[in-house]
Amino acid sequence: MPSIFTRIVNGDIPAHKVAEDDRYLAFLDINPLAEGHTLVIPKKEVDYLFDLDDETYDGLWQFAKRLAGPLKRAVPCRRVCVVVIGDEVPHAHVHLIPMNRLSEVSFTSPKLKMSQEQLAAVAARIREFV
Amino acid sequence: MPSIFTRIVNGDIPAHKVAEDDRYLAFLDINPLAEGHTLVIPKKEVDYLFDLDDETYDGLWQFAKRLAGPLKRAVPCRRVCVVVIGDEVPHAHVHLIPMNRLSEVSFTSPKLKMSQEQLAAVAARIREFV
Repeated sequence: MPSIFTRIVNGDIPAHKVAEDDRYLAFLDINPLAEGHTLVIPKKEVDYLFDLDDETYDGLWQFAKRLAGPLKRAVPCRRVCVVVIGDEVPHAHVHLIPMNRLSEVSFTSPKLKMSQEQLAAVAARIREFV
Repeated sequence: MPSIFTRIVNGDIPAHKVAEDDRYLAFLDINPLAEGHTLVIPKKEVDYLFDLDDETYDGLWQFAKRLAGPLKRAVPCRRVCVVVIGDEVPHAHVHLIPMNRLSEVSFTSPKLKMSQEQLAAVAARIREFV
């Protein structure tokens, strides 16, 4: 059965997309720790980050790098932080979190409550800078 | 003034090193969130991860990838997680954390108390697998 992220890639589940090419996709986390909290995934479905082949792995990190600038411009923050845990969905994903407070990069912190409309507005703002 | 990490690179400050080449260094965090918590740095001193030039950035992530397998073999864990915050020391560094519990990748969690001898033993165990 395809992962929920593969179903997003395939268009079977909607997402607030912020950037995409033929191999990678970035979209907002619907349970964000901070405004602009984004997930970056390879379209190729592999569970564990370090099991990705070198080419896909390198491209994933380059894709994240290209997104970090636009994210920081769209969402005022001290810096864009990176977290990869991988417990939740068995499809490698990089969390990019525009951080102002340390608690915003802690997955034991409470999540923000954001409506679909608010998420859509944030995604649109980020896309302006990509 | 050089960062504390550059002083480690230069040998002015001791560290529990686990892997090194001419451009990158990995050593144990002395305030670990979990046993085997490792910092991976480029020897080139740049504060913000996403300001690294592409070649140094790509090499840093490849260096981290090569270390993830040995870390997981040396320190029993569910997976090796990745965190980049960058608040503490103005020299880009990737935290590799052998994770069993989610709290171990949260920088708001209490740190482990490990003696220098304990850290040295963990570093030696990791080096056996590198």
